[in-house]
Amino acid sequence: MSKLFFRYGAMNSGKSTALLQVAHNYEERGQSVVVVKPALDTKGHNQIVSRLGVNRTADILLAAGQDLRGKVEELRQNRASSQSALACVLIDEAQFLEPAQVDAALEIAVLDDLPVVAFGIRTDFRRRAFPGSLRLLEVAHSLEEMKTICRCGEKAIFNARLGESGMTHEGHQIMIDAPGVTYEALCAHCYLEYEQRHSLSL
Amino acid sequence: MSKLFFRYGAMNSGKSTALLQVAHNYEERGQSVVVVKPALDTKGHNQIVSRLGVNRTADILLAAGQDLRGKVEELRQNRASSQSALACVLIDEAQFLEPAQVDAALEIAVLDDLPVVAFGIRTDFRRRAFPGSLRLLEVAHSLEEMKTICRCGEKAIFNARLGESGMTHEGHQIMIDAPGVTYEALCAHCYLEYEQRHSLSL
Amino acid sequence: MSKLFFRYGAMNSGKSTALLQVAHNYEERGQSVVVVKPALDTKGHNQIVSRLGVNRTADILLAAGQDLRGKVEELRQNRASSQSALACVLIDEAQFLEPAQVDAALEIAVLDDLPVVAFGIRTDFRRRAFPGSLRLLEVAHSLEEMKTICRCGEKAIFNARLGESGMTHEGHQIMIDAPGVTYEALCAHCYLEYEQRHSLSL
Amino acid sequence: MSKLFFRYGAMNSGKSTALLQVAHNYEERGQSVVVVKPALDTKGHNQIVSRLGVNRTADILLAAGQDLRGKVEELRQNRASSQSALACVLIDEAQFLEPAQVDAALEIAVLDDLPVVAFGIRTDFRRRAFPGSLRLLEVAHSLEEMKTICRCGEKAIFNARLGESGMTHEGHQIMIDAPGVTYEALCAHCYLEYEQRHSLSL
Repeated sequence: MSKLFFRYGAMNSGKSTALLQVAHNYEERGQSVVVVKPALDTKGHNQIVSRLGVNRTADILLAAGQDLRGKVEELRQNRASSQSALACVLIDEAQFLEPAQVDAALEIAVLDDLPVVAFGIRTDFRRRAFPGSLRLLEVAHSLEEMKTICRCGEKAIFNARLGESGMTHEGHQIMIDAPGVTYEALCAHCYLEYEQRHSLSL
Repeated sequence: MSKLFFRYGAMNSGKSTALLQVAHNYEERGQSVVVVKPALDTKGHNQIVSRLGVNRTADILLAAGQDLRGKVEELRQNRASSQSALACVLIDEAQFLEPAQVDAALEIAVLDDLPVVAFGIRTDFRRRAFPGSLRLLEVAHSLEEMKTICRCGEKAIFNARLGESGMTHEGHQIMIDAPGVTYEALCAHCYLEYEQRHSLSL
Repeated sequence: MSKLFFRYGAMNSGKSTALLQVAHNYEERGQSVVVVKPALDTKGHNQIVSRLGVNRTADILLAAGQDLRGKVEELRQNRASSQSALACVLIDEAQFLEPAQVDAALEIAVLDDLPVVAFGIRTDFRRRAFPGSLRLLEVAHSLEEMKTICRCGEKAIFNARLGESGMTHEGHQIMIDAPGVTYEALCAHCYLEYEQRHSLSL
Repeated sequence: MSKLFFRYGAMNSGKSTALLQVAHNYEERGQSVVVVKPALDTKGHNQIVSRLGVNRTADILLAAGQDLRGKVEELRQNRASSQSALACVLIDEAQFLEPAQVDAALEIAVLDDLPVVAFGIRTDFRRRAFPGSLRLLEVAHSLEEMKTICRCGEKAIFNARLGESGMTHEGHQIMIDAPGVTYEALCAHCYLEYEQRHSLSL
């Protein structure tokens, strides 16, 4: 029986680089992988983009309501006739999966015996899990942290949204490439302190 | 800065034993701990009960709406005059905490610099996180799995509710010591297969 | 394929309790375990003794030069006719295994498909691995830390030997129940500082 | 107090990529790192070379007998006057460190309060720890596995040396870029089976 792994981390912890490395490791072995990206992540279109400067095109750009298990099975059969059998499913920005798509990922691992490694952000700028992350935190076989650091040197675990006048709790859960909006990965102490200084509350 | 740890596992993975061991390790060192149990867990009243046969009385039986941080601070000041300073907060059955109580646990670690170790079940019999577990999965510094095994020998990650005619998805999220209701920790494969055999769906 | 796990920790990190809990988890499931203890550990004779107050008799008291794989196989066949099949091998004080016995443990996992969980101390009072620990650190599938704390509250990772005039680097690697000799688990900082204060060097 | 981390893995598990990602994460934050490479690794001279195609020049090419702590302290003082303070020491191919250099790495973390992350291979082609790996396995605060896969799909944990007629146990521990010699990361099962087929023993 294969497993569903959730490698979670704050923003800029190197998740896409790690995904590209796993893909590379399989392909060096003559095995092939399927790389999935939720269409909800509009940044980079169908590209997996690592901040280290390495890129790759996703095999599946998964839209809302689409059947992940069916799409992977289709690719699996296509590749069965090629020289490199499908050995692993890799999902970037997995926080943007729908809960039912995470359930499909679990079925791919458990019922179709194909390991699935999902990389994603744990929580949004208000420290609430994204729908995809929440379901992964509930059902993944293994929760593995990708570490990065806060400005203070501690491990960053939260993501602050920064507007024009500092930290904000306003706006939609997902705002990508919105003008005047940036994000910063912070440790719990810097996040809570920043929140108090801005008199923010949920 | 201290940390909030969430040690999660399926039922019967030895969480209470592990908690009692941590308490023992501190006390051997001449340091003291606070042991917390949510009052929602009616089993064993104010006792932490390990299936290995070791027991201990909780220092705080935490009711709904109660302020965890205030209660710990009170105990901390009481002990400041004794010989063994308060060094750690240990929470049993942490899935039964309210989300705000988990936020208080994070503040105890981050703002009051006292490590907090919360032991709890990840998901209920429908594979949904308990409110306390969900918040811990979102904000804990470290997610650490306590392992146990399924009847088939694989790692158990889910908890099935067994009624009189087998696996069921019926009933309240929390049913402790209800007549005719038992639980079994299962691996993902046995859980999904069992579910299909009983034609259950959520 | 099963795996060989090495759960290592400083002294008094709760290794024996954890072993007894794993045994309990299997037995609750109607599966049986083999508990192994190296005869080199003369403390408690053939008993696994947890500081929490739980005890159990070892199934195999393994002497120097003895064939672990053969002994486990023998027990496995004996139990095949009973109602509870052998499902796991648990080793206490695994730092006292001979390297060849660790190699046998790996073969039990990999070739005989029986999971082996070895609990042991990582390093001796001079911060050198014990022969059994060294081999486990080299070949185990998974290295999992059992945590405990230093007198200062940090994680303890080393074990100091304390003689009559404080920390010492003198004496045999193994001295159990020797008069005037005690041990203390320390963090790296307290260990190095203690060492300098006593002008000790290796 | 900072920590010494040992991120170990079989060959081709992406250790250099991971090191370059950590360096990038710090530098994005306006903090600087020191990248160390043992001179014993003659491949790529003073370059850290990732198989994903990213490179970087090492700040310290550490020769036998050299004082790692002194060299890092020198760089630290140089950077103190620049805008980006030294925040982390990263060591590639750490299996090639001398044991005393690993002890120096621990002192940098514990006494100089600078985190050290060492990336390296756990064992050689005969499944014996390299001198640097052995010392890291003994004294690192945290042992973290970098995973890669075997040709069979299982997790690879050993490294086989392949000569002209298959697996071999002959030759020096370190043979880099030797004609006719290649390496393959294998799982324990494939390694042991391969060994038996070639009637190899140590």
